[in-house]
Amino acid sequence: MLTIGIIGAGRIGKVHTQSIVNFVRGARVQTIADPLMNAETEAWAQSYGIQNTTADYRDILRDADIDAVLICSSTDTHSAISLEAIAAGKHIFCEKPIDHDVARIQAVLSALEKAPDLKYMVGFNRRFDHNFRAVRRAVEDGAVGKVEVVKITSRDPAPPSAEYAARSGGIFLDMTIHDFDMVRYLSGEEVEEVFVHPAVLVDPAIGEAGDVDTAVISLKLRSGALAVIDNCRRCAYGYDQRAEVFGSLGAAACGNDGASAVQISSAGGVTGEKPLYFFLERYMQAYATEVTEFLEAVRDGGAVPVGAGDGLAAVLIGIAATKSAKEGRPVKLAEIA
Amino acid sequence: MLTIGIIGAGRIGKVHTQSIVNFVRGARVQTIADPLMNAETEAWAQSYGIQNTTADYRDILRDADIDAVLICSSTDTHSAISLEAIAAGKHIFCEKPIDHDVARIQAVLSALEKAPDLKYMVGFNRRFDHNFRAVRRAVEDGAVGKVEVVKITSRDPAPPSAEYAARSGGIFLDMTIHDFDMVRYLSGEEVEEVFVHPAVLVDPAIGEAGDVDTAVISLKLRSGALAVIDNCRRCAYGYDQRAEVFGSLGAAACGNDGASAVQISSAGGVTGEKPLYFFLERYMQAYATEVTEFLEAVRDGGAVPVGAGDGLAAVLIGIAATKSAKEGRPVKLAEIA
Amino acid sequence: MLTIGIIGAGRIGKVHTQSIVNFVRGARVQTIADPLMNAETEAWAQSYGIQNTTADYRDILRDADIDAVLICSSTDTHSAISLEAIAAGKHIFCEKPIDHDVARIQAVLSALEKAPDLKYMVGFNRRFDHNFRAVRRAVEDGAVGKVEVVKITSRDPAPPSAEYAARSGGIFLDMTIHDFDMVRYLSGEEVEEVFVHPAVLVDPAIGEAGDVDTAVISLKLRSGALAVIDNCRRCAYGYDQRAEVFGSLGAAACGNDGASAVQISSAGGVTGEKPLYFFLERYMQAYATEVTEFLEAVRDGGAVPVGAGDGLAAVLIGIAATKSAKEGRPVKLAEIA
Amino acid sequence: MLTIGIIGAGRIGKVHTQSIVNFVRGARVQTIADPLMNAETEAWAQSYGIQNTTADYRDILRDADIDAVLICSSTDTHSAISLEAIAAGKHIFCEKPIDHDVARIQAVLSALEKAPDLKYMVGFNRRFDHNFRAVRRAVEDGAVGKVEVVKITSRDPAPPSAEYAARSGGIFLDMTIHDFDMVRYLSGEEVEEVFVHPAVLVDPAIGEAGDVDTAVISLKLRSGALAVIDNCRRCAYGYDQRAEVFGSLGAAACGNDGASAVQISSAGGVTGEKPLYFFLERYMQAYATEVTEFLEAVRDGGAVPVGAGDGLAAVLIGIAATKSAKEGRPVKLAEIA
Repeated sequence: MLTIGIIGAGRIGKVHTQSIVNFVRGARVQTIADPLMNAETEAWAQSYGIQNTTADYRDILRDADIDAVLICSSTDTHSAISLEAIAAGKHIFCEKPIDHDVARIQAVLSALEKAPDLKYMVGFNRRFDHNFRAVRRAVEDGAVGKVEVVKITSRDPAPPSAEYAARSGGIFLDMTIHDFDMVRYLSGEEVEEVFVHPAVLVDPAIGEAGDVDTAVISLKLRSGALAVIDNCRRCAYGYDQRAEVFGSLGAAACGNDGASAVQISSAGGVTGEKPLYFFLERYMQAYATEVTEFLEAVRDGGAVPVGAGDGLAAVLIGIAATKSAKEGRPVKLAEIA
Repeated sequence: MLTIGIIGAGRIGKVHTQSIVNFVRGARVQTIADPLMNAETEAWAQSYGIQNTTADYRDILRDADIDAVLICSSTDTHSAISLEAIAAGKHIFCEKPIDHDVARIQAVLSALEKAPDLKYMVGFNRRFDHNFRAVRRAVEDGAVGKVEVVKITSRDPAPPSAEYAARSGGIFLDMTIHDFDMVRYLSGEEVEEVFVHPAVLVDPAIGEAGDVDTAVISLKLRSGALAVIDNCRRCAYGYDQRAEVFGSLGAAACGNDGASAVQISSAGGVTGEKPLYFFLERYMQAYATEVTEFLEAVRDGGAVPVGAGDGLAAVLIGIAATKSAKEGRPVKLAEIA
Repeated sequence: MLTIGIIGAGRIGKVHTQSIVNFVRGARVQTIADPLMNAETEAWAQSYGIQNTTADYRDILRDADIDAVLICSSTDTHSAISLEAIAAGKHIFCEKPIDHDVARIQAVLSALEKAPDLKYMVGFNRRFDHNFRAVRRAVEDGAVGKVEVVKITSRDPAPPSAEYAARSGGIFLDMTIHDFDMVRYLSGEEVEEVFVHPAVLVDPAIGEAGDVDTAVISLKLRSGALAVIDNCRRCAYGYDQRAEVFGSLGAAACGNDGASAVQISSAGGVTGEKPLYFFLERYMQAYATEVTEFLEAVRDGGAVPVGAGDGLAAVLIGIAATKSAKEGRPVKLAEIA
Repeated sequence: MLTIGIIGAGRIGKVHTQSIVNFVRGARVQTIADPLMNAETEAWAQSYGIQNTTADYRDILRDADIDAVLICSSTDTHSAISLEAIAAGKHIFCEKPIDHDVARIQAVLSALEKAPDLKYMVGFNRRFDHNFRAVRRAVEDGAVGKVEVVKITSRDPAPPSAEYAARSGGIFLDMTIHDFDMVRYLSGEEVEEVFVHPAVLVDPAIGEAGDVDTAVISLKLRSGALAVIDNCRRCAYGYDQRAEVFGSLGAAACGNDGASAVQISSAGGVTGEKPLYFFLERYMQAYATEVTEFLEAVRDGGAVPVGAGDGLAAVLIGIAATKSAKEGRPVKLAEIA
């Protein structure tokens, strides 16, 4: 029986807690920590059978019974807590990104080198989505041949506030970072160069906050293959999350998931469901699979499916994209790290 | 160069004329006959380069230059004109049905037996539709294995008048006859028994005229395989024409054709085109292919794709269905012929 | 907190246990009973946190702490255990069918009349499937107008053994019973007449056992609307579960669920996922929703979504269908009850 | 009756000839010119009822009976023949591009200014395709709201020879030029900046000839909206021609056309048709509509749907794209003209 501590009881901390309680046999959540711990959160924890709650995540790190921690706190604390948890000898699942600062991510990687028995996984949940996995499987199986062009559509249903945008690190580190990881995952390749066409088309306040809300990002991969991502912070028909890999033998593409497979035919046309609303709807299965595979790696000693190096790689591309958007020119990854 | 006469310049006569002029090299329409021939129809004929028009179809039968005739006149004249055309030594394409009366169809078959060099084809146009052909090809290729269940959906966009229904021979000989032929075409089998659940759900006047406007028709085939057709005289979203063949190895199914492959995603869902409106929209390609293949058979001497026997078979099933609807019991084909 | 006893620890008993443990807050499984209770099943129960196991379901009925029971035992015990459980004052969720014998079902209904405070729900799980619910919602919303034709496709991936078929009550009471309920659910109407075209096309041994493995079932509803079901005990591409409701304003139809929304384009065509394999894959969400709604009705005192009367209605149609298949004629429901 | 001369009897000259003969009432082809006119082409012309053939296109320009010419000769002759035809007072349909040289296109525009009664149309056939038109209609109708991102997928089934590539003007002027026009057509906007990620992934010989065979092209439009095109000279599953317009209220997207709407379900999945093979299959309807609308404009005096200015605009974007690919930086259209 693995014993787990959850650090951060916000939306994503709750998602992972539910997944473990509902779906993971052989693991139990011992303690949940949150700096804003209150009666409501305590009641919520108890409804999932978790008795221990605390405002201090160090209670978790100090608990010798706890094997693994999930870092679901605010982004600016990820790398520091990671270092403490490594020092405490805990296996770690860390929500993305590890940090926006490369040096701090490098510090985590260095610490991990000295703790080879610890598992460290980064939460790129989309790799565990049934649709993206099936595309990746088609690539691995050779069904598309040599990969030549990867296309990602990634649109959120509704924009965040300008305040959120201002402290998010910018769209490329906050939102596109998932898509950068997806390009690497689907292609099995590293990115060499990034060019961005940024735009503020949804909310001028986001532009005034120094960020953009729409972008087309063109990437060159090491093999010479290409990739392109289009992002928008607002999508009238829900969460638009699609991918296509085109290669020498064909293409594998995934559409969105809807609430049902129903089509209504009437004088106005044939209408089916729009995509599920947002990430909690679309990716709940992915979150459960993700944490299950992390715990399997801890228990069985195998490799984690998304390592700290993957976390670093996506951040580097995000920094290059941010620079490209600012300077209006293609930026090589070699310029960054 | 084949020389052709068209008997009947109504809607379907015009369709075939256009097909020949536009698509068939090596054939030309010499004369068009229609009992109601007038200036408008003559002008229409001339716009297609056809100089000869007449009110008397016998002008066509007497014309030694004419190789083949298309019988597109009203249904009650098909068998009589067929017999005259056979006597005149013309190849014949006859619109469905040959007749509603079995004895008259038999008379045509008998006459044809004595004229083995004449081609006689019946106009079951749906056999030439790209979708139904692709289903049939999948069956022939063995993709579905041994045929077990054939399902046909056949719904017209708008009901005919009660007057039309009254003199149509009834829905089973007027509308379902195409579907009966489709069951034979897709399965490659003969029908043994028919059971009908009839209903008047669209227009009570059709019921008062002694006909029905909606029906589910269940058929048993000679091999023991089953088929089912559902018909409605009114369909709010257009002409619904689909088929599915289910067998030991899988199923082949065809959807409808729409005006485009466009989908519009909005807050209300994802909407595509409804089916094309009616037979002139859906089956124009089928009509052109049909008459092309008839003329190829005439020119090259091969078998016609739909013979007089096929015309008889569909009428027999239609008569059995009419009887089943009236008597409320399954009717064997053996009871009819 | 509701306290629950599970009677029967076979496949479906386990499914419901998992659903309650994983998804239902405010309910807990106190005891599981199975006449073949053994160490393996006990270990399984404990892995879900259930300490009490027994070979005698009466232990559950006698337990004053238990509010509700789920009857997941073999079909021939459903009605007798139902009567005992009613006598013991337990709320009851009973797997379908209540019984194959109408008199025994009537006995349950009579007992329930005298216990108006007890909830009694029958396990027609498909009513809780997201796809069929969305079709039903479209009907209720008026999107299809007046219902005219209901079509159900229901094919199992692989046939049962001939032994199973022999003691199953026959395909119409064992398999089609779900589809009969679906016709009632989707149309909101009662069935008046049934006609069956039965066939043995998959396994001759099933025929020798007195059952059939393929059928087309044509139904007339009270309003004059029609319905048709096609069943096969073997389907090469998985569990084919579709429905369509056609009406005066249009149609609502649902396709199958697949493992992903991925399509692979290659020289051989564009290929997507086949349907999920069988009911455990397709209907897991439906099972969880079903038992959740039962427990909500128990807790909140509302009506159960599928009552004992629904259980009786489907069995009556099944008996009529069996009679029709045997006698080769349409059978009215009025002949049965 | 309009009288027409066709200049160039290659593939596309033949396509337009067939369209006019088969589909356009009130117009006839008087003469076909081709520098390589031979017996085979003459026979082909006669099979379409065209008696006059010549090796010298000036025979057409000198023929006072001829109202309009279709310039279907090799690209390097388009602008010179255009000028001669304008001087001869003929209405002109010119295949794309008018020229690869901006000054020469400008010369044609200048000559047209002095001949305001002459119609001059450029052959961007895709604007007449039923799918792209339906997307454009959705944009015009306001169904997608304010246009924000246009995405074009454009992949040819098989690469041209390296020799062809060498003298084609490069992929951006030969192939992408259609997609540049499509961006303008679908968005109703002008392009401001182009960035290209080029690649040689299909045939190294194309790279040695100084061209590329794969590219992602990112465009910024004047309003700030974005567009992206991905091109490949080889596509294993046929001619992949799709477009999507995303905006404030939703998205309109079109898929490919296949040979049928058939889907085959088997143990291996559910397989539909791949896209039609290449432009003659996919765009035959578009070619016929295109020439029909040109002749309507000539006859009725309205505006042509694609003018010489559209021809220039697409070439300018193509030149900017070529420059971007060479210099590895975004290129503004303002740098070109």
